[in-house]
Amino acid sequence: MRKIKDLGEFGLLRELGLFGQKLPEGWIGPGDDCAIAPKSGGNLAITTDLLIEDIHFRLSTTGPRDLGWKAAAVNLSDLASMGARPLALTVGAALPKNLPFEWAEEFYKGLRECADRFDCVLAGGDTSSAEKICLSVTALGDMEGRSPLLRSGARENDDLWLSGEPGESAAGLLLLEKGLSGGKALEKCLRRHLCPEPRVELGLLLAERRLANSAIDVSDGVLADAGHISERSGLKVLVEAGKIPMSRELCACAAKSGADPFELALGGGEDYELLFTAPPKNREAILEIGKGLGLGVALVGKVEKGSGVSLLGEDGREMEPKRSGWSHF
Amino acid sequence: MRKIKDLGEFGLLRELGLFGQKLPEGWIGPGDDCAIAPKSGGNLAITTDLLIEDIHFRLSTTGPRDLGWKAAAVNLSDLASMGARPLALTVGAALPKNLPFEWAEEFYKGLRECADRFDCVLAGGDTSSAEKICLSVTALGDMEGRSPLLRSGARENDDLWLSGEPGESAAGLLLLEKGLSGGKALEKCLRRHLCPEPRVELGLLLAERRLANSAIDVSDGVLADAGHISERSGLKVLVEAGKIPMSRELCACAAKSGADPFELALGGGEDYELLFTAPPKNREAILEIGKGLGLGVALVGKVEKGSGVSLLGEDGREMEPKRSGWSHF
Repeated sequence: MRKIKDLGEFGLLRELGLFGQKLPEGWIGPGDDCAIAPKSGGNLAITTDLLIEDIHFRLSTTGPRDLGWKAAAVNLSDLASMGARPLALTVGAALPKNLPFEWAEEFYKGLRECADRFDCVLAGGDTSSAEKICLSVTALGDMEGRSPLLRSGARENDDLWLSGEPGESAAGLLLLEKGLSGGKALEKCLRRHLCPEPRVELGLLLAERRLANSAIDVSDGVLADAGHISERSGLKVLVEAGKIPMSRELCACAAKSGADPFELALGGGEDYELLFTAPPKNREAILEIGKGLGLGVALVGKVEKGSGVSLLGEDGREMEPKRSGWSHF
Repeated sequence: MRKIKDLGEFGLLRELGLFGQKLPEGWIGPGDDCAIAPKSGGNLAITTDLLIEDIHFRLSTTGPRDLGWKAAAVNLSDLASMGARPLALTVGAALPKNLPFEWAEEFYKGLRECADRFDCVLAGGDTSSAEKICLSVTALGDMEGRSPLLRSGARENDDLWLSGEPGESAAGLLLLEKGLSGGKALEKCLRRHLCPEPRVELGLLLAERRLANSAIDVSDGVLADAGHISERSGLKVLVEAGKIPMSRELCACAAKSGADPFELALGGGEDYELLFTAPPKNREAILEIGKGLGLGVALVGKVEKGSGVSLLGEDGREMEPKRSGWSHF
């Protein structure tokens, strides 16, 4: 008898028929960062994410306030990648009976801080008891007449863009796991892991001004998420290793923990930056938007005929990258 | 240090400030069956419910297909009580690694059957592993220009109405717990517990024709839910014991399991019928709607000045009912 662990997370969803289901007209179904429901007055973006104790976080290394922020942020990041304006969050929270009330209080404080920061209403949810903490957050976004940015929208000759500096979150997680701390660089990477900043404004502006053809938020790692764009768009995505922004802080943390900073930047997950493709004619407008937001946006590759993701080394030669991803089973 | 179990489910939500929070204009916040988000083209109703293994269900007595149906149904019932048209469901499903794939397949089949029955799209969600099954379902409904039916809308001299025949679900649960089975009556009560039917059409018609002033779905038991209407409307709700419909099947199951059928009908939860109040002038229209749907609707009491819930005995005398409810902590 097949067990769920034999299928993995994506295999399970595929086998269950959740991908590629036939939907009523106007719907965009599971398989993107959000589902899109047709709605007069502006379509809706809908996304749900789970955070499970000892799978997605450990109580020993994650405080409740950070966890609350992150639970909201990872969902708002999914809205950002579609170009949706955050509207509402609900939270299903199963909590152990013996958890101190203060834990729940701090968790909801963090949740509310992130929701407030992006003008999103915490519209309730449900609580229950459970042996371990199980959090399920659903976020709703309003497309307000905009077309959603999809993984499938990349076009031949598009530029590939990335916001921010990837890998810091993975470096932060490494530090946590190794029990290392101290220093400003380490602190920055830790914050990036514990309190990621969803790129809501960037997603909104890209969608509003119709600058991007496709987008995804970087949760599985730059290369893995480039792979999602490639697969869904039916095109080849080239990533130029030398153009990936590598922060001083990432390099410092990688050195401290004995990891390869390139591997963290390209394969580490939970960056919650936006990876998107856009026609070359939009370069200036995109750089302007980044400037206006005080957020780096870097041209890191391009889209071509073909399939899969290729990494262009500093020497200009193509190499099959090690694909890295993450499965929660 | 206060533990979460010291506060209980409602106490926790209250202490966390989720009730009575200050919301932007046009919002109706947590505390009703759904939150209402203002949205051009028709407001949205939003609700989230958790179903946790060994708290809300046991694998030994609940099959995955029934559980899938019920996970959808309890959320659609919340939409029904607001008069919202089901739009989309998302499911956060944390499942043990060693669960057979067939379990997940049957669960999603049941979920989809219920969603399809009410023209609601299963718009994805998230999966992860966990030690015990933890399900979080969020449902979205479209108000399509209707005003929501709220717990707080009851008016003095309103009639109190109840759809269907309460207590059968509680009787079904008793049978399950005592390992009793056999006979058509028992089978009916079991189905009512395992596969409740959300009263979506009734809620829609009541809201569309503006017939009801307030409504709630019966999840905590008729008296407890009458209490929610009383509390939120600031009025007294009188329930006439002799007018509560008592099905033959309920009485047969109660006899078999040695329980008081009245107590099951008034205090048992998970009926997922609608309890609503309406001005006496709407009596005929409400009975017509019930007839059209093939669903019993019974006039079971009234709303008066005052507070709390009173039960009128068959002798016409008021008695303080035993309040029964349910807390998931």
